[in-house]
Amino acid sequence: MNTVELIKKKRDGKAFTIDEISFLVNHYTAGHIPDYQFSALLMAILLKGMSASETAALTNSMLSSGKIINLSSLKGYKVDKHSTGGVGDKTSLIIAPIVAATCVYVPMISGRGLGHTGGTLDKLESIPGFRTDLSLAKSITVLRKCGTVLIGQTKEIAPADKLIYSLRDVTATVESIPLITASIMSKKLAEGIDGLVLDIKTGSGAFMKSQKDSINLANSLIKTAKSFDKEVIAFITDMNQPLGNYIGNWLEVYESIQVLQGKVKNDLYVLSIKLAGAMIYLGKKAKSIREGERIAKQKIENGEAFNKFLEIVGLQGGDINYIINPEKYPKSKFVQKIRSKKTGFIKEINTYQIGMASLELGAGRRTKDDVIDHKAGIILYKKLGDHLKNGDIICELHSDSGTKLKSAEHLILESIIFSKTKPSLPKLIKKVIR
Amino acid sequence: MNTVELIKKKRDGKAFTIDEISFLVNHYTAGHIPDYQFSALLMAILLKGMSASETAALTNSMLSSGKIINLSSLKGYKVDKHSTGGVGDKTSLIIAPIVAATCVYVPMISGRGLGHTGGTLDKLESIPGFRTDLSLAKSITVLRKCGTVLIGQTKEIAPADKLIYSLRDVTATVESIPLITASIMSKKLAEGIDGLVLDIKTGSGAFMKSQKDSINLANSLIKTAKSFDKEVIAFITDMNQPLGNYIGNWLEVYESIQVLQGKVKNDLYVLSIKLAGAMIYLGKKAKSIREGERIAKQKIENGEAFNKFLEIVGLQGGDINYIINPEKYPKSKFVQKIRSKKTGFIKEINTYQIGMASLELGAGRRTKDDVIDHKAGIILYKKLGDHLKNGDIICELHSDSGTKLKSAEHLILESIIFSKTKPSLPKLIKKVIR
Repeated sequence: MNTVELIKKKRDGKAFTIDEISFLVNHYTAGHIPDYQFSALLMAILLKGMSASETAALTNSMLSSGKIINLSSLKGYKVDKHSTGGVGDKTSLIIAPIVAATCVYVPMISGRGLGHTGGTLDKLESIPGFRTDLSLAKSITVLRKCGTVLIGQTKEIAPADKLIYSLRDVTATVESIPLITASIMSKKLAEGIDGLVLDIKTGSGAFMKSQKDSINLANSLIKTAKSFDKEVIAFITDMNQPLGNYIGNWLEVYESIQVLQGKVKNDLYVLSIKLAGAMIYLGKKAKSIREGERIAKQKIENGEAFNKFLEIVGLQGGDINYIINPEKYPKSKFVQKIRSKKTGFIKEINTYQIGMASLELGAGRRTKDDVIDHKAGIILYKKLGDHLKNGDIICELHSDSGTKLKSAEHLILESIIFSKTKPSLPKLIKKVIR
Repeated sequence: MNTVELIKKKRDGKAFTIDEISFLVNHYTAGHIPDYQFSALLMAILLKGMSASETAALTNSMLSSGKIINLSSLKGYKVDKHSTGGVGDKTSLIIAPIVAATCVYVPMISGRGLGHTGGTLDKLESIPGFRTDLSLAKSITVLRKCGTVLIGQTKEIAPADKLIYSLRDVTATVESIPLITASIMSKKLAEGIDGLVLDIKTGSGAFMKSQKDSINLANSLIKTAKSFDKEVIAFITDMNQPLGNYIGNWLEVYESIQVLQGKVKNDLYVLSIKLAGAMIYLGKKAKSIREGERIAKQKIENGEAFNKFLEIVGLQGGDINYIINPEKYPKSKFVQKIRSKKTGFIKEINTYQIGMASLELGAGRRTKDDVIDHKAGIILYKKLGDHLKNGDIICELHSDSGTKLKSAEHLILESIIFSKTKPSLPKLIKKVIR
């Protein structure tokens, strides 16, 4: 096969065969196709698209570039959840212990934050001692013991994805549904799961700004999952405001503890229960998603979910004293309340900009090499539809830098739009697709 | 400016500003933008297009990456011809002396052959001693003395084009009208010309197979030339069969000599007269193209064109004895006549394949490093519409390799399609656009 002829084929809108896709992925991963050819190919894929069967073949080639975790020694259903990412999205920390408490296995491989979004691994690592870089063998041991394990992508898992993603990132070829699908699914399928719940975010803080794009992505992910005989349920959920009230790594662990202890019943709680309910249903521990949700609520009320969280933190090396007594956690040098300069109802929040403000405070990364300040972030006291008077507190900023506090305050105040009348609120869960 | 954001802009179908295009070309040429980003950009340009003003800006940036030859010391009009290339297209060798004989300057920068097409430089270099690599200073001296000079692209001329073309060649991004336009025009404008005649080939031996694409390319080239205040006339001409009867470097010089001496009046003669006529008209030595054609014919009949050719060969170091006595030129080891295995009229010639047969015999290059056998090639005795009986001679093959002769014979016989009735013939000059 000739690489230039294959690029030409996609450029001219034709479909690849399975063998052609496998040739391209294998030869690129092996270093036999140079970056400059592969990036031209990626742009042609982004602009000309790929059919469902091409997307499945691409997923398979990327999956096959690495190891698939063999969980056959664990008797029982294995399920994971994947979110396309947003601001304040910490459901993984809540869901994994709830679902594991129902004896459904949750092998969860997560990512790091970049740009305006946080990453589950960074949040977990804000717990002193918590290790996300367990070996595969150790991961399986933890999973066997407590029903869940929360780790990062190892070198053995879908190495082709890592290479291709790095190239997409610098060539404006990230926003392609087939490429996003193959990237997500190659990693999820490597987990050795039986089923998958998808949380596709839509709105100002999501990668997919429009609901139409989110539905297209959901359908592509579902088709691909099914072609690998995986059960799958997708939720299209709102990201027009941060999820929950806490943004920043430790702050998000703190809010997760509140939810797991049944002390907070906000939008974060509602979405976590919904996603956990679907996972429990897929895991055959409930006859419907609704029954799954009831079980999920029970696991919070009876303390099993919080105990499971303590167990997983302990097994992965984390200091559970901070989970039991979160107020002991070190505080930022500067903790400052931000007051509204306007009166009215909150009508819109530029959620992307809230994410960037959190990054500015030290909670995020601009480039892969930035170091995160785990304490830093935002506590948002008011959300969409809430009423504020001039001088009322909107939020609290946590940072070790006084100058960064100033620029974050500016970003936040700028990102909130007021209205005189109470606005209609976006639905949290917009659509279920299966 | 941010390269990824600029790639995204073109990917999303938006138009670049002049500054953005200049940033991209300058930074790529300086090595500050890596190949993998530029190739993704090229694919986005190919698939999303560029406006006329973007194409002009791209041309200008590529032109400005190098020197523009200053011919202001030469009083008089300067005109060149550019052909998009085909099989047996040797008009440059005939036109340059004709037009120079009318006291219009013809500074001609030509290219080498690659794939199925030959290159003017390779043809000229088949004349023993002929040098196409003159310095700019020496080129101007030759031009001043005899009115024309036939050289190759120097390092000083449009270096950005050389870099970008190499990348396009290996990333399936050659076939883009704005990219082709900028590549051609940046080199032609560097010649310091006042006017340009374009010969856009269409048909089975051309890069543009369809007449529609050829017309689009012609319009794009004309618009760009005019935006630089250059006078321009474009001809859409037929390339559904080789031009003339000789294919291969020395063989084409030989046929050019025959035309310049007035001994041959075939399609090559007709097209050469037409193109030269337009150049003479642009050069203000005729009131119309038609009058220009009459003058061109005169220059052949009165021997001035052939004498001018002898002069230029001599000035560029070539041995004029071979021009005066071409039969003294060394012959290929094998010269073999090919006979038809069918009876009928020649209805179609796969001209691309004829070009590939000539390459196979040793007259062309598969890769840039291949060495050319100047003697090798094809003399085609029959063309479209001609009648052949089984056993009649179609052509004569010249090669130093007996085995290559066999495969070339196969290619040629395969490329000719016969019909029982006399087919209608394609028009040689399909359209004039100005």
